[in-house]
Amino acid sequence: MTQVDLNADMGESFGPWKMGDDENLLQVITSANIACGFHAGDPDVMAKTMTIAAENGVGIGAHPGFPDLQGFGRRNMKVPHASLRNLVRYQLGAAMGMAQAVGTKVRHLKLHGALANMCSVDLDMARACYQGALDVDPDIIVMVLAVTKQEEAVRELGCKWVGEIFADRAYNDDGTLVDRSLPGAVIHDADVAGPRILEMVKKGAIITESGKRLETSIDTICLHGDGATALQIARSVKRCLTEGGVEVTKFER
Amino acid sequence: MTQVDLNADMGESFGPWKMGDDENLLQVITSANIACGFHAGDPDVMAKTMTIAAENGVGIGAHPGFPDLQGFGRRNMKVPHASLRNLVRYQLGAAMGMAQAVGTKVRHLKLHGALANMCSVDLDMARACYQGALDVDPDIIVMVLAVTKQEEAVRELGCKWVGEIFADRAYNDDGTLVDRSLPGAVIHDADVAGPRILEMVKKGAIITESGKRLETSIDTICLHGDGATALQIARSVKRCLTEGGVEVTKFER
Amino acid sequence: MTQVDLNADMGESFGPWKMGDDENLLQVITSANIACGFHAGDPDVMAKTMTIAAENGVGIGAHPGFPDLQGFGRRNMKVPHASLRNLVRYQLGAAMGMAQAVGTKVRHLKLHGALANMCSVDLDMARACYQGALDVDPDIIVMVLAVTKQEEAVRELGCKWVGEIFADRAYNDDGTLVDRSLPGAVIHDADVAGPRILEMVKKGAIITESGKRLETSIDTICLHGDGATALQIARSVKRCLTEGGVEVTKFER
Amino acid sequence: MTQVDLNADMGESFGPWKMGDDENLLQVITSANIACGFHAGDPDVMAKTMTIAAENGVGIGAHPGFPDLQGFGRRNMKVPHASLRNLVRYQLGAAMGMAQAVGTKVRHLKLHGALANMCSVDLDMARACYQGALDVDPDIIVMVLAVTKQEEAVRELGCKWVGEIFADRAYNDDGTLVDRSLPGAVIHDADVAGPRILEMVKKGAIITESGKRLETSIDTICLHGDGATALQIARSVKRCLTEGGVEVTKFER
Repeated sequence: MTQVDLNADMGESFGPWKMGDDENLLQVITSANIACGFHAGDPDVMAKTMTIAAENGVGIGAHPGFPDLQGFGRRNMKVPHASLRNLVRYQLGAAMGMAQAVGTKVRHLKLHGALANMCSVDLDMARACYQGALDVDPDIIVMVLAVTKQEEAVRELGCKWVGEIFADRAYNDDGTLVDRSLPGAVIHDADVAGPRILEMVKKGAIITESGKRLETSIDTICLHGDGATALQIARSVKRCLTEGGVEVTKFER
Repeated sequence: MTQVDLNADMGESFGPWKMGDDENLLQVITSANIACGFHAGDPDVMAKTMTIAAENGVGIGAHPGFPDLQGFGRRNMKVPHASLRNLVRYQLGAAMGMAQAVGTKVRHLKLHGALANMCSVDLDMARACYQGALDVDPDIIVMVLAVTKQEEAVRELGCKWVGEIFADRAYNDDGTLVDRSLPGAVIHDADVAGPRILEMVKKGAIITESGKRLETSIDTICLHGDGATALQIARSVKRCLTEGGVEVTKFER
Repeated sequence: MTQVDLNADMGESFGPWKMGDDENLLQVITSANIACGFHAGDPDVMAKTMTIAAENGVGIGAHPGFPDLQGFGRRNMKVPHASLRNLVRYQLGAAMGMAQAVGTKVRHLKLHGALANMCSVDLDMARACYQGALDVDPDIIVMVLAVTKQEEAVRELGCKWVGEIFADRAYNDDGTLVDRSLPGAVIHDADVAGPRILEMVKKGAIITESGKRLETSIDTICLHGDGATALQIARSVKRCLTEGGVEVTKFER
Repeated sequence: MTQVDLNADMGESFGPWKMGDDENLLQVITSANIACGFHAGDPDVMAKTMTIAAENGVGIGAHPGFPDLQGFGRRNMKVPHASLRNLVRYQLGAAMGMAQAVGTKVRHLKLHGALANMCSVDLDMARACYQGALDVDPDIIVMVLAVTKQEEAVRELGCKWVGEIFADRAYNDDGTLVDRSLPGAVIHDADVAGPRILEMVKKGAIITESGKRLETSIDTICLHGDGATALQIARSVKRCLTEGGVEVTKFER
């Protein structure tokens, strides 16, 4: 039976500021990418989020980002590769400590925001980040954006990895995302998102706007953690997959 | 043969700013308390400091502090105990990740600055911090200020611990430090510091200004990492101990 | 005709995180205390909030706090007085620059959170903070918690000031607030808050839980900017005052 | 008589960390670019540095940078123009507040590090930053890197400005700096730097490595504030200019 994982960014609150509907989404998703305090999250938020994730049987991932709270890690920064490597090591270590403390374990790692975007087009940068993660835990499962330089990096490194596609974004023929400013780039309709993802998972391929098939490893679907319709889309995608005969479950490697 | 450890705070540089003479002191001391990025240190500084420490056979400790870079963790903060516990977990986890990445291991934990000072007189606060550390690693060796609430906390928790005294500070009869504003409170003379510490280590007791003996577990001597005479005092204390028949070596528990 | 001002903390969003319902509250209040980036707020939030405040004819105040984003400036910090003075100067200067840039002006200053609480019982600390503000602008109007050390400090300094009471908090006979853990300490009912404040404003006195009258300068009423009922209570207090013959308007000095 | 100003970055210490030899350099230079707390500097450092600058008759400038302490503002960040404008407004405002508080005044503004580098090749970005400064103080004198997009921006804005060249860097024929990795790019010899700068100031032109003359407004010479030879080069350049008949004095506009 075909299996797929559903992941979302979690633990993005900070201090007094709340973000996302983590408690409800953690009942839908199977893997949580948890912010590590550099672009969002703090030790209290991490402890709480990991505890709820573990209670729901959700797999826990470290979600390192640039040290840029105000910009939420979404602003490109030009950081030397040695520093990137250390920055990932530090955040993964912190996440592992927090997980251990609340009785659970970090299974995977996914890069956040601008760090992820830059690594999806820069092989050396992706390698530096992932090498940092593997330095800390050689068994960590790296979650990569399918058909990008991120995937190329993990293939080269020979580490455990899973490939991810977006539930709510349209794809160009080269595997990049359709620019947000173009019509149809973002799918806001839960009734559209579900069947679309079901088809891709069943075919084992990204289906682009033009209808082209990009065969790839679709191990996990990225859902969004905030926004008015986040929870609705998440539930719709899950139901659609389940009813379509795909088992929604944590990935294993 | 009597043994004692020499420890100092290390890795207190931050970004472009250098502090201390870590490279030279790491050739004298046997345990390094390494800042974890909240009051000093950053991932790059941690990686570098841990690497040099490991090369010199120096035991590595996490040195968590308050999240207060400008104040260098020396300003008291009133933080809820649950947050303190998470704050220690996070910093210890980060240090463990960095250590693992550079091929070494965190053996001990010592609190920094105002966090340490507050915990030396507040049992509940000390317990919260140390519990946070034990949540992450039940085998961690907690370094405590001898005859303070810090010591009381580790005795209650039943964890591995070592007791510390200062090489360059005079003690009151109740085990507290003589106030820095009083004459003789701080020992600046390397020729005085050495013999004084040798006597305490041999007798297994703090000898106060009035000559009173406070029996305690003197497992490690705290040396200062910066200041003009830091390196000189460190070398003098080490030589004096060695010549006096005390083996200077990493503590084991 | 009796006049009174309504103030609330504004501009407490930060980066991607939203807090409070500023746009609606700025249509009710007459003075806004705007966070300056140390405990909340950032340059973008400040510019936006000041612009809307100015459009609504709301008086603009700087609202400096401790440098503690995670703790939202609500955790006590022990900061030397010289640093407190500089910390207030810096935040007020930044607020004045932002105000000037969007075509308006900072009229008043109110301390935030733990900084305010500590200054309400520590005269020297209050004096250090307010002196910092007056160093930058000798004409600034300092908003103080009535009948506290804050008021004593401005009286000593001889500067322009206004006295403030809380719309939703009960008072002890010594002018301190009833502890939040006690019943009746916080007034959640908009129908209660309004008439209660009207009475105090008309009598020119705080009326304590026991019925005692503490005569003071009630120039402004502090409303809360967040919480489910914040907007409702704000509107209710305003209506009640207006209908009771009190003019709700910006203070002048 | 030909006049020229000597400027250097000052106030780059932070909390417990010291950088540069400000006290001595402030006896040599005529304008100080003072860090505003985002990439370096803090309110205490700003107050102290401005006080000493004023005592030495040195002109005070705000020196805003990216919000990146660890990277010292030297790492490129992709920040939206509206945010850049606010970030400059905030830092200039803070600097003006601090200056006012210690009895002096901010006369000029110079961008720092990566922010400056990016603005020297990106006209829109330079315009956004300088517009932010002018929003706060229309009379501020903007210090620009001569013959770059920074200069183009101030010419378009029609504001007061001065042009700057480096004392210790070699120039390409297009006015850009010779890459640091090439031989001769950086002048470490005080005996070379002085005469070289004297010639350029007298000729009113940058003289490139190939000997080409780029005529420009040489109003101020940038000296470095740190490094072993900073003070020596500063003194040498000043002496050389003075002996060569150039008056070293604060610029006026």
